[in-house]
Amino acid sequence: MKLWQKETGSKKEVELFTIGRDPDFDILLAPFDVMGSMAHAEMLSTIGLLTAEENEILQIGLKDIYKEIQEGKFEIAPGVEDVHSQVEFLLTERFGDVGKKLHSGRSRNDQVLVDLKLYYRNEIEQIVEDCSALFTILISLSEKHQNDLMPGYTHTQLAMPSSFGLWFSSFAESLSEDLGLLKAAFDLANKNPLGSAAGYGSSFPLNRTMTTELLGFADLHHNVINAQNSRGKTERTLAFAMAGIAGTLNRMASDVCIFMNQHFAFISFPDDLTTGSSIMPHKKNPDVFELIRAKSNQIQSIPNTISLLLSNTTTGYHRDLQLLKEEIFPGIETLKSCLQMTGFMLNSVTVKENILSDSFYKHLFSVEVVNDLVLSGVPFRDAYKQVGLDIESGNFAPDQTNLKHTHEGSIGNLNLDAIEKKMDLAVKEFNFHTVNQAIQHLTK
Amino acid sequence: MKLWQKETGSKKEVELFTIGRDPDFDILLAPFDVMGSMAHAEMLSTIGLLTAEENEILQIGLKDIYKEIQEGKFEIAPGVEDVHSQVEFLLTERFGDVGKKLHSGRSRNDQVLVDLKLYYRNEIEQIVEDCSALFTILISLSEKHQNDLMPGYTHTQLAMPSSFGLWFSSFAESLSEDLGLLKAAFDLANKNPLGSAAGYGSSFPLNRTMTTELLGFADLHHNVINAQNSRGKTERTLAFAMAGIAGTLNRMASDVCIFMNQHFAFISFPDDLTTGSSIMPHKKNPDVFELIRAKSNQIQSIPNTISLLLSNTTTGYHRDLQLLKEEIFPGIETLKSCLQMTGFMLNSVTVKENILSDSFYKHLFSVEVVNDLVLSGVPFRDAYKQVGLDIESGNFAPDQTNLKHTHEGSIGNLNLDAIEKKMDLAVKEFNFHTVNQAIQHLTK
Amino acid sequence: MKLWQKETGSKKEVELFTIGRDPDFDILLAPFDVMGSMAHAEMLSTIGLLTAEENEILQIGLKDIYKEIQEGKFEIAPGVEDVHSQVEFLLTERFGDVGKKLHSGRSRNDQVLVDLKLYYRNEIEQIVEDCSALFTILISLSEKHQNDLMPGYTHTQLAMPSSFGLWFSSFAESLSEDLGLLKAAFDLANKNPLGSAAGYGSSFPLNRTMTTELLGFADLHHNVINAQNSRGKTERTLAFAMAGIAGTLNRMASDVCIFMNQHFAFISFPDDLTTGSSIMPHKKNPDVFELIRAKSNQIQSIPNTISLLLSNTTTGYHRDLQLLKEEIFPGIETLKSCLQMTGFMLNSVTVKENILSDSFYKHLFSVEVVNDLVLSGVPFRDAYKQVGLDIESGNFAPDQTNLKHTHEGSIGNLNLDAIEKKMDLAVKEFNFHTVNQAIQHLTK
Amino acid sequence: MKLWQKETGSKKEVELFTIGRDPDFDILLAPFDVMGSMAHAEMLSTIGLLTAEENEILQIGLKDIYKEIQEGKFEIAPGVEDVHSQVEFLLTERFGDVGKKLHSGRSRNDQVLVDLKLYYRNEIEQIVEDCSALFTILISLSEKHQNDLMPGYTHTQLAMPSSFGLWFSSFAESLSEDLGLLKAAFDLANKNPLGSAAGYGSSFPLNRTMTTELLGFADLHHNVINAQNSRGKTERTLAFAMAGIAGTLNRMASDVCIFMNQHFAFISFPDDLTTGSSIMPHKKNPDVFELIRAKSNQIQSIPNTISLLLSNTTTGYHRDLQLLKEEIFPGIETLKSCLQMTGFMLNSVTVKENILSDSFYKHLFSVEVVNDLVLSGVPFRDAYKQVGLDIESGNFAPDQTNLKHTHEGSIGNLNLDAIEKKMDLAVKEFNFHTVNQAIQHLTK
Repeated sequence: MKLWQKETGSKKEVELFTIGRDPDFDILLAPFDVMGSMAHAEMLSTIGLLTAEENEILQIGLKDIYKEIQEGKFEIAPGVEDVHSQVEFLLTERFGDVGKKLHSGRSRNDQVLVDLKLYYRNEIEQIVEDCSALFTILISLSEKHQNDLMPGYTHTQLAMPSSFGLWFSSFAESLSEDLGLLKAAFDLANKNPLGSAAGYGSSFPLNRTMTTELLGFADLHHNVINAQNSRGKTERTLAFAMAGIAGTLNRMASDVCIFMNQHFAFISFPDDLTTGSSIMPHKKNPDVFELIRAKSNQIQSIPNTISLLLSNTTTGYHRDLQLLKEEIFPGIETLKSCLQMTGFMLNSVTVKENILSDSFYKHLFSVEVVNDLVLSGVPFRDAYKQVGLDIESGNFAPDQTNLKHTHEGSIGNLNLDAIEKKMDLAVKEFNFHTVNQAIQHLTK
Repeated sequence: MKLWQKETGSKKEVELFTIGRDPDFDILLAPFDVMGSMAHAEMLSTIGLLTAEENEILQIGLKDIYKEIQEGKFEIAPGVEDVHSQVEFLLTERFGDVGKKLHSGRSRNDQVLVDLKLYYRNEIEQIVEDCSALFTILISLSEKHQNDLMPGYTHTQLAMPSSFGLWFSSFAESLSEDLGLLKAAFDLANKNPLGSAAGYGSSFPLNRTMTTELLGFADLHHNVINAQNSRGKTERTLAFAMAGIAGTLNRMASDVCIFMNQHFAFISFPDDLTTGSSIMPHKKNPDVFELIRAKSNQIQSIPNTISLLLSNTTTGYHRDLQLLKEEIFPGIETLKSCLQMTGFMLNSVTVKENILSDSFYKHLFSVEVVNDLVLSGVPFRDAYKQVGLDIESGNFAPDQTNLKHTHEGSIGNLNLDAIEKKMDLAVKEFNFHTVNQAIQHLTK
Repeated sequence: MKLWQKETGSKKEVELFTIGRDPDFDILLAPFDVMGSMAHAEMLSTIGLLTAEENEILQIGLKDIYKEIQEGKFEIAPGVEDVHSQVEFLLTERFGDVGKKLHSGRSRNDQVLVDLKLYYRNEIEQIVEDCSALFTILISLSEKHQNDLMPGYTHTQLAMPSSFGLWFSSFAESLSEDLGLLKAAFDLANKNPLGSAAGYGSSFPLNRTMTTELLGFADLHHNVINAQNSRGKTERTLAFAMAGIAGTLNRMASDVCIFMNQHFAFISFPDDLTTGSSIMPHKKNPDVFELIRAKSNQIQSIPNTISLLLSNTTTGYHRDLQLLKEEIFPGIETLKSCLQMTGFMLNSVTVKENILSDSFYKHLFSVEVVNDLVLSGVPFRDAYKQVGLDIESGNFAPDQTNLKHTHEGSIGNLNLDAIEKKMDLAVKEFNFHTVNQAIQHLTK
Repeated sequence: MKLWQKETGSKKEVELFTIGRDPDFDILLAPFDVMGSMAHAEMLSTIGLLTAEENEILQIGLKDIYKEIQEGKFEIAPGVEDVHSQVEFLLTERFGDVGKKLHSGRSRNDQVLVDLKLYYRNEIEQIVEDCSALFTILISLSEKHQNDLMPGYTHTQLAMPSSFGLWFSSFAESLSEDLGLLKAAFDLANKNPLGSAAGYGSSFPLNRTMTTELLGFADLHHNVINAQNSRGKTERTLAFAMAGIAGTLNRMASDVCIFMNQHFAFISFPDDLTTGSSIMPHKKNPDVFELIRAKSNQIQSIPNTISLLLSNTTTGYHRDLQLLKEEIFPGIETLKSCLQMTGFMLNSVTVKENILSDSFYKHLFSVEVVNDLVLSGVPFRDAYKQVGLDIESGNFAPDQTNLKHTHEGSIGNLNLDAIEKKMDLAVKEFNFHTVNQAIQHLTK
């Protein structure tokens, strides 16, 4: 039964079409729906819409449901429309009419909004953790391989000496910078929409500042229309941030696929992490990285799909917004698994040594040699000419092992400490501790 | 002549195809190219690659060019490939060989990168200014019309009472929140890539920390590969942020177009700001807002176009990146003009008064009446039943003028102060002052 | 067990990550995998790679499996990698080594390709059927409501008289034109890739022309690399065509949502097909059409997601292509359900009568009156001036019921016959009959 | 002056904002605007809205303007709003009031629509010509290099023998198949919208069938709303088709960039067609192909941008549609130049010979050897085992030159004749001859 229903029911066809994949996604919102209700009930009791006694009953009931959810015992009963109805149904079944009082001063719209915000906030924390774990692996690989040189390419052409130390830590620093967008998404998710009701507020004297504090939100969407309009906007902002991280993963996976090609053969993975061909012994297909590359493209497509859903729509809730979940929820799961899988694979990576000692790569060193001459006092034009002539005459034979790059962030000075500090600062910005303390206090 | 050219030239067809629209965009980079060179020369003189005297000559020469640019006297001479070559050409023409020394320890890649970063940083400041100006107009309209009620819609259906005060300030608050993404873009633009050379660093003992400070960057891309990979990523992040603001504009413009429709007729603009039909006197076409709606969609499409350009590419510079300018540069202009035009139009908006006193809207008040009864002590179920019966029997006649919404961000309590404070804080985060001080110091 | 496996297995994590959602989608390919194998075996027996006897055994075995699939008795056993392995496993289990011979001259790549082509071909036929059914409903509504006038809008402003007859049949004709893109997609799906093996052909003397005929393909991808490269391209082309139809649905749903708004109130649906609010009696939310609008946006986003997956990739199979199924398979289901649901809803639509007799709409008729005067001999400038003056003085009172639009496709001459003929021709182009005859012959 | 203007003018700011880039694009529409007017006038004279004499004057006047356009003497005078106004202005200036009669029974909406349809029709013909020219080059390269073997890759891993003959003609066949989508776009462009006026038809007794024939349209958009709704839909369909061709170019360019990499070194171009580095002699940057790759991505992004512009909009003209030109017009130019440039470059390509005779590639031949053994009578399992053992023991030494692929579309049997026939048929489908005959007759 649907909560808004009086007498006439929807035809079965309509019901089936409109519910869509919601039941799959709703179950993920259960703990957050309970949190939202805890805060709402607490607040209602301070403005006279619930008695202290009623509030106490509800808090106990909600805590029980919360526990059931955490123990995996909660499910949406057949015929119940959604997670919100299920929670209300359980409360009413267990405690009678007080269960129905919980919905005073609240609409389904702001209830869903607050659930989603809390869910995103929580998922963002997990994404940050997965980024941090991958970051640590990358930094450690960079350190380990700081002396393993490899070619650097521009225009996909051999260009200059590079190193695995440089290559690994480039993605580490990139991840640290990706957290900037994620923080912007977190800030939007970390604003309280509760009290916006159907998007135009309520005539009850709600205390929105109180629910903001109880739920650990850093701020509130003050304007109630703006709170409602944050539906879709929050998802798109999160999708932007996810696309940012996916961009880093896509670049790394693209590199890996080419570096595993036999012409390059710069890196390899154990047999049980690649797929092969029984009859082509040298074939070790990088399926995992091909899929990371492709999945990160799927993630990068989400912002646009959300833009299409929102584009040219007017203020106020539209049922269209329901489909946001179909885009962002699986996207979050995909991103987390790609981050984890990248780390899982890199933990077993083998790097080819002494690549650049092959004379095939000697021209990579021409700029180095010119620079060395310049630093030793030879005027640039003369140095340049001399090297050019050596190359032309086939007499160019640089020392292909001895590179003296010393500036910040170069082969010889990777600045890993600075990059680690950057990551630390980026993570600290989220201030997850405060949020988690509030939630712990609310649900304890 | 191209700087990398030895003997063979490119065929004319190749030249034409590869230059593309670059000359149009390059001129915008001129002042920033000069700034980058000022900092680079200053630094070179501290590591022995320029003498103090040479540096002084270059600084004076660069300041002259900078002045010429600001006075509109600078142009890229025919046959000169790009802005960077033009600056170098002028220096060499005026001061001889010292002009060529400027390029030591620098590649075209990191030179362009630093130019772009400085340009974006500057444009972001202008976008923030345009947002702030529009924000101020919206807040003032909200204040002026705080008592002008209008209907609120859900599912495009009449739902609840709303107000123009609420409607205008919803976009104000939305803009303040959009600055979060823009700050993330700014942070990425505000990192020094100089010294990354062709993406693999330099064997010269550059002092990248020094150029970071001279150019007012908040930080540097430490890892040189990461610095190079920030090309495209910076643009996409900025495009995300621009899409965020465009989303707010698109929503507002969509509302305006429907509110100007004769069935609604909630708002209007002077004749000279709309386009009409000579024979249909009641037609006042909202062309400006239709175009804002459409242009904001163009802006919202940019992130995806950039994603397509970058997708599945490997580490290192590719010529593909040149086309980023074609996407982001016009997008920035479009966004600024849309922000300005929205403000320009809203300055002349007329709002219809007393909309809700028409009995056509009476059902909007049913929830209010139920809530009032509840607050006066009637149990919810009885209140609900009573109102339902009144509606059914045609006896429902609510007071359509007296709304008592009191909570934060509601019709009766718009919280404009809090929203203004939010905006102030959001703008302060950028810390433009520090950046501008550094640039002033560098170019004075 | 995987078919390519020799000794080392994949780690469980890799397996889980790489399989993804394939099992869900693969079951849909089962009947087509069997068809492909039937044709392949038949052909192998003509080039000496199967004896006539072996072929007979395989044909009988495949027909049994085909029957099991049609009766819903087929499933992919746990631990079996995919539908192709399951079919081969069943054949080997039932008939011994001959089951393994089936894979001669075939690679997993071209096997999957042919399965997909046959599946898309079949789904396209169903989409055409759903379009035709909706077309018929629209034409019949157009006929029924040919005299029911309504306003026509430009710039969302009241502009000219229109009619429901015109409105309904506009979407009918649009659907007939959408079939053009779908035919292009069908033509690409209707080309035989079998024999391309891993994308570089086979050293066996395959007869690809024969399998082309057996499977009812209209043509073959001659070049084997091109056959392999059609993976992704076929999906994107189909996605384009689906986006075309989705565009028509999106436009119609957008109209419906606004026409159901109370200010317009042009159309309505029975209570059990809309969702309402128990306390706001006049609210009838158009959830179904909001979801059709949104789902058609999801469909319109698929081409871009596929573009991102394919962009900048090189020739040859990549594991990335596996994810195409995740995009296109659910998209097909969504499109079919949206087409069906639109028809289901329109079967119950009620149209408001006599809308234009309200004087609110009188200015819609100004152009008509001018044209009437011109046709009666008054010079245009005089006619125009006279009407303009009447409007200005408030004396404009046109006959709001008598419209004489007579040209092709106008209010008074809807040309429904011509539009129906257009649809008939569009459907006939597909020539499904030929395809189905071949498949019937193959599987009988 | 604007044609719809009575008294009040638009503020300069509004004018500037709304005109946008239209003047740049409008000049391209000039010849087509004249054609549309020729047909419209001819038709008006048959329904009594122009006298025979007036029509004759207009036809002569229009032919003069048409000639001026073709001779490059036509321009839009300052202060004139658009190309349509300029044509009307010239006629009125030269022949007096009869010039103004031309607009009877026509609205700016259907006038622009017909101009665009004629323009797209014409551009599509040019795109087909560019595709054909490139096709011819590819077929001839395929023929020339049919015996030049190269490796074939799957998962970017060395997989099987391939050949340049196969590689070149794969793109030829791909282009021939891309014309299917382009034909669907052409069919939509080749439908007459004239007579739909502002989207709701006209009360004049227009003869739309007559203008359909005069302009060489294959059919008409019967329903006038559908005619109006084809704006945007036509552009998006064309964008789909362009994205299809761009997909083929993107794949080829991606291959070229990697094949020019020094590890592969399969193909090369003369120095004056690549860009180099003065100090890195082996660097030959594939800038042209990098830009083709990137530009084809820009083209592939257009459908999505158009979808965003159209998404969720209602029936009837909106000013938003004006911006379609900004997306599709430059896209057409880009596509044509990419097709031409690809051909230009390929005309100078050099292919490396005897690549596969290097023992580095010997494992590519393992499948061949197994197949040969099978064909010579050895049971597959034994053949497979034998080859596997040879590989393992290092004794595998296949004949790396002698490949016997004989089936349709394989290395040894490229089927170029069949592919050429396919292209011929695809081009003939457009039936450009009929269209051009009509236009020649109209404008002679």
